[in-house]
Amino acid sequence: MKDLNELLATVSQLFDQANHTAAPAGLYDPIEYTMHLGGKRLRPALLMAACEMFGGEAEQAANAAMGIEMFHNYTLLHDDLMDQSPLRRGKPTVYRKWNSNTAILSGDTMFALAWRYMLQSRCQRLSEVLSCFCNTAIEVVEGQQLDMDFERTAKVPIADYMEMIRLKTAVLLACALKVGALHTNASAADVERLYGVGIHCGLAFQLQDDLLDVYGDVAVFGKQTGQDIIDRKKTYMVLRAMELLPPDEAASLETMYAEPCIDAAGKVARVKEVYDRLDLRTVVAEAVDREFEIATAELDAIAVPESNKSTMRELVKSLVGRKK
Amino acid sequence: MKDLNELLATVSQLFDQANHTAAPAGLYDPIEYTMHLGGKRLRPALLMAACEMFGGEAEQAANAAMGIEMFHNYTLLHDDLMDQSPLRRGKPTVYRKWNSNTAILSGDTMFALAWRYMLQSRCQRLSEVLSCFCNTAIEVVEGQQLDMDFERTAKVPIADYMEMIRLKTAVLLACALKVGALHTNASAADVERLYGVGIHCGLAFQLQDDLLDVYGDVAVFGKQTGQDIIDRKKTYMVLRAMELLPPDEAASLETMYAEPCIDAAGKVARVKEVYDRLDLRTVVAEAVDREFEIATAELDAIAVPESNKSTMRELVKSLVGRKK
Repeated sequence: MKDLNELLATVSQLFDQANHTAAPAGLYDPIEYTMHLGGKRLRPALLMAACEMFGGEAEQAANAAMGIEMFHNYTLLHDDLMDQSPLRRGKPTVYRKWNSNTAILSGDTMFALAWRYMLQSRCQRLSEVLSCFCNTAIEVVEGQQLDMDFERTAKVPIADYMEMIRLKTAVLLACALKVGALHTNASAADVERLYGVGIHCGLAFQLQDDLLDVYGDVAVFGKQTGQDIIDRKKTYMVLRAMELLPPDEAASLETMYAEPCIDAAGKVARVKEVYDRLDLRTVVAEAVDREFEIATAELDAIAVPESNKSTMRELVKSLVGRKK
Repeated sequence: MKDLNELLATVSQLFDQANHTAAPAGLYDPIEYTMHLGGKRLRPALLMAACEMFGGEAEQAANAAMGIEMFHNYTLLHDDLMDQSPLRRGKPTVYRKWNSNTAILSGDTMFALAWRYMLQSRCQRLSEVLSCFCNTAIEVVEGQQLDMDFERTAKVPIADYMEMIRLKTAVLLACALKVGALHTNASAADVERLYGVGIHCGLAFQLQDDLLDVYGDVAVFGKQTGQDIIDRKKTYMVLRAMELLPPDEAASLETMYAEPCIDAAGKVARVKEVYDRLDLRTVVAEAVDREFEIATAELDAIAVPESNKSTMRELVKSLVGRKK
């Protein structure tokens, strides 16, 4: 079994060698550009680690790994257009570098190519793979729709927010793990446990992301602190703060948060002051821990030798930024 | 075996009963709207007719028929956004009735739902169905890209135009036929012949469409005459005219065609005068006939009793507007 470094090297190699250049260039150049923007290749790594955990070889799952990353990048491409985001991984987004129509059509092609990769999986349990992938694809767009809906919703209950991030973020991580496991003869029960690992890691990952937007180290995290506040984005941070505050203070946070951002630094500082007062950093870190612990418990319960779990444990920890 | 009216009734019933209402409404309402805009349901009819021709029951292929129509409508939804078309079947397009982001995301969902229908096909030869559907989906976007590329290309050779319409229009009709046949034990050779029927019917259908834009009866055809000329769209008509004209006259047609359209009726009349002089109506009608004859010859060669072909023959004729 590969250790984490070997696994990540296998994933890197797979994507370094991939080439999606084809005609018409107007369609495939943006795909090749997108697939070589880099990124952590988290989903293919999870997929391959799952395959190895149950005694398979990462390489067997190469097509599915490409497919899941292709799908993920397709969602980013369309999301960037819908959100009008200028940059992705420090480079111009496709709709900026080319145009909106290119982003739509190249994205559509990537979704179809993701299916082609999935169909090419050499896998005994292909129908389960395809059905999981299809359900996940539908859930991810539902999550994106909820996220857009929340922008226009004054009060979003925490439970609805959790459902949104489950759909938008967690199910794809869970799908990657499940599809990797389906490349082996893992039992149905273990496959479902691993799916649960993905869901709770995904939730932890997203809550952590919301936390780091306010309290992250810019040098490490790579984003400007408080960007979600500037963008007036509904996050776990602001929703949790509203829940913890007495009604009148919640109302004034809501007003403050909804303000058009003229003095960005000032607004971030004022919102952060409220968060500090509520010790939201600790509150949210605890929520991250809870999800991470559920994920760990699911992983513990999977019926393979502990030695088979070591790479997966490391990967899962790195996902939520744990050193140990 | 169902006759054409019975088959069309089965198709109508299938779509009348279909309901895609679900949460979030912002995502599914536009899908429900799109799927009930009507239309000829040509592709599901072809799919079901193919199934019946080889001894199957149309109803067996209901999931695949829904899938192919869902896919077709997804491409229309994204195309309407990319082309900024205000109307589809006389009703506001999704991006106009809602907005661009809704059109992108609801379209993405429809593509995923099309896959779900395809995966739910009760069909012994599912892997062939899925692989045909996947390849077709990729070809259709390639065709759309070529169509957009041609808008910015001064000279488009007829061969390139034919390849574009093969991809953009013909392969999906061919896929519908092939997928229908794959619901039975039709031989591989017959399945490929039927695929050829779809390709050549598709080409005939598109050339006919180009012809009718200029010489069609508005009352029957439902579109304004000369819209392609007004939109400066590269069609078989203008490309064939350029090919037939001596170089200097071709150059002046090119200039006239490329003009921004201030006096629409005047421009249409001037271009039509050139077409009339070349007797393009006859020339293009002959090209339609040629494709239709190739399709018919392929259908003739399929090894099933002639009585099994009657519904398919009628359907294929109606597709290219033949009375007999």
